[in-house]
Amino acid sequence: MKNLRITIISTGSELTAGRSSDTNSTWIAGQLFELGWKVRNFLVLPDDPKVITDELKNLKEISIQNPEEPVLVIMTGGLGATEDDYTLQCALELNDKKSEPSEKARLKLQKFYETRGKSYSDILPVVLRQVYVPEGSVTLDNASGLAVGFVESLSNQSYLVCMPGVPSEMKDMFNRRLVPFLKRTYRKESLFQETRWVWNIGESLFQAEFIPQVSDLLADGMEWGVTAQKGFIKAIFQSKEKKQVEEAALRVEKFYGSESTSDVFASVHQKLSIAGLQLSVAESCTGGLLGKKITDLPGASIYFNGGVIVYSNSQKTKLLSVDPEILKSHGAVSEETCKSMLNGLEQISNSDLSLSITGIAGPEGGTEEKPVGTVWIGRKRKGANAEAFKYVFPGNRDTIRENAANTALFLLNQIL
Amino acid sequence: MKNLRITIISTGSELTAGRSSDTNSTWIAGQLFELGWKVRNFLVLPDDPKVITDELKNLKEISIQNPEEPVLVIMTGGLGATEDDYTLQCALELNDKKSEPSEKARLKLQKFYETRGKSYSDILPVVLRQVYVPEGSVTLDNASGLAVGFVESLSNQSYLVCMPGVPSEMKDMFNRRLVPFLKRTYRKESLFQETRWVWNIGESLFQAEFIPQVSDLLADGMEWGVTAQKGFIKAIFQSKEKKQVEEAALRVEKFYGSESTSDVFASVHQKLSIAGLQLSVAESCTGGLLGKKITDLPGASIYFNGGVIVYSNSQKTKLLSVDPEILKSHGAVSEETCKSMLNGLEQISNSDLSLSITGIAGPEGGTEEKPVGTVWIGRKRKGANAEAFKYVFPGNRDTIRENAANTALFLLNQIL
Repeated sequence: MKNLRITIISTGSELTAGRSSDTNSTWIAGQLFELGWKVRNFLVLPDDPKVITDELKNLKEISIQNPEEPVLVIMTGGLGATEDDYTLQCALELNDKKSEPSEKARLKLQKFYETRGKSYSDILPVVLRQVYVPEGSVTLDNASGLAVGFVESLSNQSYLVCMPGVPSEMKDMFNRRLVPFLKRTYRKESLFQETRWVWNIGESLFQAEFIPQVSDLLADGMEWGVTAQKGFIKAIFQSKEKKQVEEAALRVEKFYGSESTSDVFASVHQKLSIAGLQLSVAESCTGGLLGKKITDLPGASIYFNGGVIVYSNSQKTKLLSVDPEILKSHGAVSEETCKSMLNGLEQISNSDLSLSITGIAGPEGGTEEKPVGTVWIGRKRKGANAEAFKYVFPGNRDTIRENAANTALFLLNQIL
Repeated sequence: MKNLRITIISTGSELTAGRSSDTNSTWIAGQLFELGWKVRNFLVLPDDPKVITDELKNLKEISIQNPEEPVLVIMTGGLGATEDDYTLQCALELNDKKSEPSEKARLKLQKFYETRGKSYSDILPVVLRQVYVPEGSVTLDNASGLAVGFVESLSNQSYLVCMPGVPSEMKDMFNRRLVPFLKRTYRKESLFQETRWVWNIGESLFQAEFIPQVSDLLADGMEWGVTAQKGFIKAIFQSKEKKQVEEAALRVEKFYGSESTSDVFASVHQKLSIAGLQLSVAESCTGGLLGKKITDLPGASIYFNGGVIVYSNSQKTKLLSVDPEILKSHGAVSEETCKSMLNGLEQISNSDLSLSITGIAGPEGGTEEKPVGTVWIGRKRKGANAEAFKYVFPGNRDTIRENAANTALFLLNQIL
């Protein structure tokens, strides 16, 4: 197959009215990129059946006129239980079909009502609509919600995929249901892929200093991509030959040493889940973000004790016994305060591992000596000395806080 | 004029590869919505001149074929000084035109170089390209950058607007240059808008039980929209008549009582910023998310002390002195534990206001009596009794945690 023309569509009048932003398309495009597919364009449409149907008909027409370039349309939104959910209706009109219930989804909905003490006949027709799909379509189960997704044919090898707009439901459906379908359908000669995270570096520097190191592999057909994250970049290598991507990953590791890692969130979670060690955190400028990130993963309760949010100086002293003299002479954002937070945290939590963060997230509070973005991050193993590392993160308040929390996990991963 | 068919285009291969997300379109649509214009769709395209030109030609064709529905295309990106900036080239090809420099922008660029000790002849052609526009087009000055924007005609009353992709430059250009042009061209009357948040309710129930209450206003031309958030919905009313939207907002307040609010995050922040009260939080299942949300807003340090993350039972006892007997007999997710967390928190923080959250975020840990989603949220003013409220939130781990943190702020707002 030559090419696949991929269009991602998000529907929702709240999107085209600017009340909320389309994050689904970006996420889907990123996932497809990692699977080796490039997206041609995104479309964002209001909950207007005429507009949606027009665009789908146009894409179907394109797929018929260029049979050697199959069209894949991935659409999210409009599958819910309100009057302005039109996706099913548009898909039916597109292929002039009737709808039928997905029996599995219907039973789930029924059970959902019954556990709430209601009977099947209580379900409003508009609510019931969520479990209907075009007759004969491939259904995509929804593990975390009620609305079922589906894949409809546009023409030979061309498909329309419809998924709910709720990001958590869509992501789960994409990974567990859609990806296997796409791999099966387009027999993507499986490309081998290696990903490495590199910390404290931007995309352009990585490109300038590292990519020349793999020019031989690129000349031999390997492809690369890089995505900027908060605190690190993801370097992705793809090739038909396993050896090439393994070699590229090896060169990243050699070039960047301990600044190059695998997925740090997964690694920390995996290592701590079996280590029998307890972790606590003390957060100032991140305000709880580090704890939130750790507990994003179910099962974190095995190793995560919790910790303290010491946003004010008074709480640093009150909860962590940070000496007011240290705060006065060195400031809240200093190596001394950062280490003192670790010592205090270990004392009150009795955890085996402690992390601390104190910094200036901005936009106010920066000085010449300590500009906005200055963050001290500490780590300590029980019995060992407290260590603290200084960073000056770029970006705005959000970015600086994300950088700080991610980097704390990077520093923790190093000592596990 | 009957209708205006508005398409917003963002260009950038970093967008279609999922490396960064398109915030410009959302912002522009929001501004247009407030000015009373509805956007038909967004398009996100890669830095590929063929793809961009194809789409523009298609839109021009549409404008020619439906002269009674003028087309307005607002495009951002691709006007900079790098090789992959193709917007000018595409606009020239679209109308088969030559380019000419904007004299004002050219002088600005020259001055920019001269203040850096360089002469005009040092400017590379690719950099100079930023000050060129299609001959005869309306130029849009860039007050905060070098790249000049422009408006090209597509057909009678139909236009292509090109602006830089840098958000700060685009926003300034939009407000100061483009809006006057659009008002002049399309002579639009402005719409009034009111928004209310309603808690603990879904979109479909709101539609079913409330919307009939404003059927008279809707028959008189008012429009409404609703967006689902985590823990609440946003109900939005628009009309040419101020009285209508004020009346609709009043009816929401009357119908939902204290479950209807304004923006709770802003309200809590504003009230606490002037109240001289200190706030602390104790989080179990949210793991830091509530603290993170509070500290998302700069200036929270005025009132936010911090708190504790007591993810494990041992830490609930160790840090907050929750009686192990309470944990044993009532469980960690119970009214008693929730209140005990408040009392312990007040004691160690000495804050005027305390919030606590303990629940089952899942996917594991649910029982028949306490299913996944069960969350107790507590609030306490110093000197008053601890109060605790039980919720059973729908959705997955992420959704339940977001619901819980948002609802805690809703409960806090009620007592401020």
